[in-house]
Amino acid sequence: MLKNDRVLRALLREPVDRTPIWLMRQAGRYLPEYRQTRARAESFLDLCRSPDLCTEVALQPIVRYGFDAAILFSDILTLPDAMGLGLRFVEGEGPRFEQPLREEWAIRNLSPPDPELELGYVLEAVRMIKRALADEVPLIGFAGSPWTLACYMVEGAGNSDFTVAKQMAFSRPDLMHRILQVNATAVADYLNAQIAAGADAVMLFDTWGGVLSEASFIEFSLKYLELVCARLTRTARGRRVPVIVFVKGGGVWLKQIAECGADAIGVDWTIDLGRARAQVGDRVALQGNLDPVALLAPPERVAQEAVRVLESYGEGPGHVFNLGHGVLPETPPEHVAVLVETVQHQSGRFHRSPE
Amino acid sequence: MLKNDRVLRALLREPVDRTPIWLMRQAGRYLPEYRQTRARAESFLDLCRSPDLCTEVALQPIVRYGFDAAILFSDILTLPDAMGLGLRFVEGEGPRFEQPLREEWAIRNLSPPDPELELGYVLEAVRMIKRALADEVPLIGFAGSPWTLACYMVEGAGNSDFTVAKQMAFSRPDLMHRILQVNATAVADYLNAQIAAGADAVMLFDTWGGVLSEASFIEFSLKYLELVCARLTRTARGRRVPVIVFVKGGGVWLKQIAECGADAIGVDWTIDLGRARAQVGDRVALQGNLDPVALLAPPERVAQEAVRVLESYGEGPGHVFNLGHGVLPETPPEHVAVLVETVQHQSGRFHRSPE
Repeated sequence: MLKNDRVLRALLREPVDRTPIWLMRQAGRYLPEYRQTRARAESFLDLCRSPDLCTEVALQPIVRYGFDAAILFSDILTLPDAMGLGLRFVEGEGPRFEQPLREEWAIRNLSPPDPELELGYVLEAVRMIKRALADEVPLIGFAGSPWTLACYMVEGAGNSDFTVAKQMAFSRPDLMHRILQVNATAVADYLNAQIAAGADAVMLFDTWGGVLSEASFIEFSLKYLELVCARLTRTARGRRVPVIVFVKGGGVWLKQIAECGADAIGVDWTIDLGRARAQVGDRVALQGNLDPVALLAPPERVAQEAVRVLESYGEGPGHVFNLGHGVLPETPPEHVAVLVETVQHQSGRFHRSPE
Repeated sequence: MLKNDRVLRALLREPVDRTPIWLMRQAGRYLPEYRQTRARAESFLDLCRSPDLCTEVALQPIVRYGFDAAILFSDILTLPDAMGLGLRFVEGEGPRFEQPLREEWAIRNLSPPDPELELGYVLEAVRMIKRALADEVPLIGFAGSPWTLACYMVEGAGNSDFTVAKQMAFSRPDLMHRILQVNATAVADYLNAQIAAGADAVMLFDTWGGVLSEASFIEFSLKYLELVCARLTRTARGRRVPVIVFVKGGGVWLKQIAECGADAIGVDWTIDLGRARAQVGDRVALQGNLDPVALLAPPERVAQEAVRVLESYGEGPGHVFNLGHGVLPETPPEHVAVLVETVQHQSGRFHRSPE
């Protein structure tokens, strides 16, 4: 039995005593203890491949701040790496695939990996983190969305507009749909394996859904998010496993995203959270949405901005406090402490039980 | 008297016989004739500073495709350059300011330039392009928005998140507001000078409004777009001068943007144009919104996507066809021809006069 299940309850729109909080990239470069652990691995990928080190870094922000959930420490690109694309991280430049998916034969040959065989190190990390958490807080598993993974797989590297991937979607939609079909199966299998290994909730990151037009988003991303949601194990160890879908830049499509089958929608900072709530109604919970840059402001301002997000969501259940994207590496750790304390101490008034 | 005034009429929601079309960056690197002219200038900035060469490149897409409007050839950063920030373009890396605005004293000393004195070369280009156009089609002048200019001025270079500028907005809002006040005056003076020199319409590019939260967008960008709109000359040479405001990534705030005082709103490709129209009602015209990547697809697909945008907007006045952002340098020029022909030949049916 989890001692603190606020995140799981809030994701399912059940009552809580205060708004729970965790942050995307809460385990990461802004923390000196993370940088120390990181220095013990040859490369970022070696860090991801060591269940021991992953456990160490996943626990660090829980110990330091008392977040209401831990998140698996990994990278969304380990999945396409397991599909044979040859991932490496170039220092200061980000991820690269040695075999980007451009040729028709390679796309036809693509197949979903067996998570236990090819991604055993991630599942072992899930099991170790769960043991280390000792049921204090839940563990969130995650994967990239089929579209976001396809962006990197086709492009071969990260950038901010993914022209090559979008060009394939316009020019050879048959090939793009083939990749997305395989990815949807792979993502669902991978998340189900994480759930079987102990993940209490899972999150799908559609980091690059927002580069698409509305029609293309529905055709190439949302449809496959729906497929994944439909295939996920929704109950494990006697409890509902909430699913969070986060589409960065998806504020304009919130109503459509709210119908994809997820329990909760992650929202970036570009839409006012109250307005987002009015759009999705009571269909889903919302997770977000402080601008990560706000954490670079002086502590008083951090607290003000946190309260603004709480007030914007307003009273009642269904809000998990988070940033609108990952913690920036230059974030002062003491500002994160101010944020967590503000949410812990000032969110109770939004959850008074009805008389 | 302009022979083809469709763009001006559509921007004011007046009836037209077919949907007019022009494209952001229609004069640019995708055109071989542009690359030839560009090779005759030492640098991109030298090209911008030569009214002769600017006239040559501004006319090239009019001659080749018969677009319904020409746009001034220049760069939004010539204005902060005229404020003493020292602009240069680093090959393959984009713009750099030698003196980014970081110090309080420099911000206090910032003042709007006199356009005739400091930006005479731009105004001379406006006059020369107008003469060369010989009243065939209108000329659109332009400037960056106060916020977007501030992003580059504070950051000192382009990037995609503008953390330094946003950090100043969170940490020293007084300093950011001071920059934005100066920019708003400078932009209004500059656009009014372009109008006096002959521009028939003007466009404000808020390319980086979309990096802000909703509350910050209203405080740091929209408020200053309103200020600029309120200060612009709205009639020249006996005719209304339409004002277009384009906020990239602003689809989620369309209703608010539609109230800023502009006649027309530029829309990027992330929102369905029909849905955008339903949101803004009859307050403003809309300009957009084909994804520039669609132009990399085979010609049949280009034509299909163009018709999809026309159908999405639907019947009646108030639509200027454009991309959702600038033409990509790798665009095949013959695909642009297909786009223009499709809009010219297939948009008449959306403009039948009522029986």
